[in-house]
Amino acid sequence: MQIIEGGVTAAAGFQAGGTVAGIKKNGKPDLAIVFSECPAVAAGVFTTNQVKAAPVVLSQQQLVSGFARAVVLNSGNANACMGEQGMQAAQEMANATAKCLQIEPPTVLVASTGVIGVPLPVEKISAVLSQPASWVSKAGYQAAATAIMTTDTFVKEIAVELEVAGVKVHIGGMAKGSGMIHPNMATMLGVITTDLDIEHALLQQALIRATEVSFNRVTVDGDTSTNDCLFVLANGLADNPKITEVNQAYQEFLAGLIFVAQELAKMLARDGEGATKFVEIKVSGAASEAAATQIAKSVATSSLVKTALFGEDANWGRILAAVGYAGVEFDPMNTNIYLGDLLVCQGGVGLAFDEAIAKEILSKKEILIRIEVGHGLGNAVVWTCDLSYDYVKINGDYRT
Amino acid sequence: MQIIEGGVTAAAGFQAGGTVAGIKKNGKPDLAIVFSECPAVAAGVFTTNQVKAAPVVLSQQQLVSGFARAVVLNSGNANACMGEQGMQAAQEMANATAKCLQIEPPTVLVASTGVIGVPLPVEKISAVLSQPASWVSKAGYQAAATAIMTTDTFVKEIAVELEVAGVKVHIGGMAKGSGMIHPNMATMLGVITTDLDIEHALLQQALIRATEVSFNRVTVDGDTSTNDCLFVLANGLADNPKITEVNQAYQEFLAGLIFVAQELAKMLARDGEGATKFVEIKVSGAASEAAATQIAKSVATSSLVKTALFGEDANWGRILAAVGYAGVEFDPMNTNIYLGDLLVCQGGVGLAFDEAIAKEILSKKEILIRIEVGHGLGNAVVWTCDLSYDYVKINGDYRT
Repeated sequence: MQIIEGGVTAAAGFQAGGTVAGIKKNGKPDLAIVFSECPAVAAGVFTTNQVKAAPVVLSQQQLVSGFARAVVLNSGNANACMGEQGMQAAQEMANATAKCLQIEPPTVLVASTGVIGVPLPVEKISAVLSQPASWVSKAGYQAAATAIMTTDTFVKEIAVELEVAGVKVHIGGMAKGSGMIHPNMATMLGVITTDLDIEHALLQQALIRATEVSFNRVTVDGDTSTNDCLFVLANGLADNPKITEVNQAYQEFLAGLIFVAQELAKMLARDGEGATKFVEIKVSGAASEAAATQIAKSVATSSLVKTALFGEDANWGRILAAVGYAGVEFDPMNTNIYLGDLLVCQGGVGLAFDEAIAKEILSKKEILIRIEVGHGLGNAVVWTCDLSYDYVKINGDYRT
Repeated sequence: MQIIEGGVTAAAGFQAGGTVAGIKKNGKPDLAIVFSECPAVAAGVFTTNQVKAAPVVLSQQQLVSGFARAVVLNSGNANACMGEQGMQAAQEMANATAKCLQIEPPTVLVASTGVIGVPLPVEKISAVLSQPASWVSKAGYQAAATAIMTTDTFVKEIAVELEVAGVKVHIGGMAKGSGMIHPNMATMLGVITTDLDIEHALLQQALIRATEVSFNRVTVDGDTSTNDCLFVLANGLADNPKITEVNQAYQEFLAGLIFVAQELAKMLARDGEGATKFVEIKVSGAASEAAATQIAKSVATSSLVKTALFGEDANWGRILAAVGYAGVEFDPMNTNIYLGDLLVCQGGVGLAFDEAIAKEILSKKEILIRIEVGHGLGNAVVWTCDLSYDYVKINGDYRT
């Protein structure tokens, strides 16, 4: 497997693009399309929030068929909490996209991100799509990834080439994140494309597993959005022997899909709103993977831990306290905490460590926290970022 | 029932005081004692964190007898995560206090607050207590409440006089809070005193109920401390007919205890680290009180809601999203949200409200958010504060 250029259009038969529809007040790109030149098997995972935005509800309906031709995404407005008016707007986005690309409306998936509870000016999207979409092309992958950004500070995309059953296959993806990032799900919007040939049920199964160990392992602020969705489209143009069971070829593809999803997920943490540091939290020795994940997430969501990391303060006591209220049984007497390679707490008791070394470790842009909570076999990794002044600034005045 | 002066020494037979032991680097008062002139029935509630500081473990043991004479409290160091050394330091605090006050060590309760994982310089406390404690007196209630402060910006104390079975009884209390404030418990340290005559089991029962609707209903940052504890001492000097069952007199006392506990709890939210606003969240129409509480806490702990309140931004969509991931079944279509008296979301759908009115409501120091989630009978109130730049500043560099 190797990383290649091309993002969401790296796989054969995919095109993409981004343009300005005028939804964002600042005039930045806010409309993106990902298009498959032929029908693609499609799967999706969605927010667990009981309040689901209209595009989430519509896309869940569209995916029942198991096929899709395109994904249309807008930023600047989440089209959430607008009732029937919101559902009509989401449907209109699908209709206008279908007409523009000369495909059927039920084959268009829809996603939105931005402010909640404000009517989506869908007529602006329809106006753009009433013209031929010359901006959708093989070369438009970066423009698409740019147009779904909100408070993101960099474009999030990745693509890989790998062999599946001896055939070259490509997987590419894009995502946007920044705030309201928390399992489950932990991306606001993501699209992954592949030229693999695979049955629908197996594609869905692979997506669920990949999401579990990627987007569901990243947290920025503990808030789960109403709009989270991640789609994967597989159009079969790689001409591999079609995957119809969980075999070696399936595992080869799954490894590639997990890699792409994890790289995108880590970019979300790295670009968390106001983030100055990328933080990896590794928990080992728990009773199960689920227990380890719960402990790691408790530490990753602690405002006290995250502000201490921003301040480069080796306040490991807050880490141990967050382990203590994770809701998982563990033995503090068998708990060790490392900042990078520096052991700061052994058997639940603080060590007289070298503050200068700790300071140097915490001054880095990437920080590893390792927590051993016993002798069990459960391990987990969770990614997050620090909590800075800029998080407060960005979110104190988001709507205006 | 009327509010009176006197704080934690308002009840007959109680003395208190605060002094400088030199634990805090800034030379501020850091040692407090609350003393009953005669044996008092004593009850306590403690942190639910699995990592418990040494003074918590010791005080739980001391309370088995059901009696106490004194509480000794220090700020500046939590005496947490220090293993056997920490237990010895806590015991030494009790021993030194007992010797100083000429009482028995097992009748001394101990509490600590401050940085975790640093050895408590208990010899400084012992040195102070090797001299007669002339600073402990009827007049020392404010000094005691001052000496337990950490990042608190004001003293938290309250006292009331009420009639129980026709006899005048007094209840007074003090607390410290500020950061790491989250159910259950939600105070780092609190002491309540009363001259009521009551059996131990009933005092413990009353304390648990009062805590449930006060300190367990306040959240600052979602972190539960290793040191939380709340004690109540009842010395019987009011000479009321001893309360030995849940009767009218018990209910009269419970009402007073709840009032005192709620007033202290609200002060914690008002003085949350970096807080610029006090926020009351009322949820009604849920299936049960527990469901309503869970929803209210979900909103109260959302970093996105709290930063929006700091920014005075009427971003009610974040409130609805936090209701949506609270983990409680509810119907978004039957959900209404009010900022103050302004209805901003009806039946889960945003209204075109007057932004100027919303801005005026949010510019106040005290903000009420009301959330109706259906037609059930479950109601709950939770208190919190906003999330400001200063929260990040205070917690980014706490240890140094």
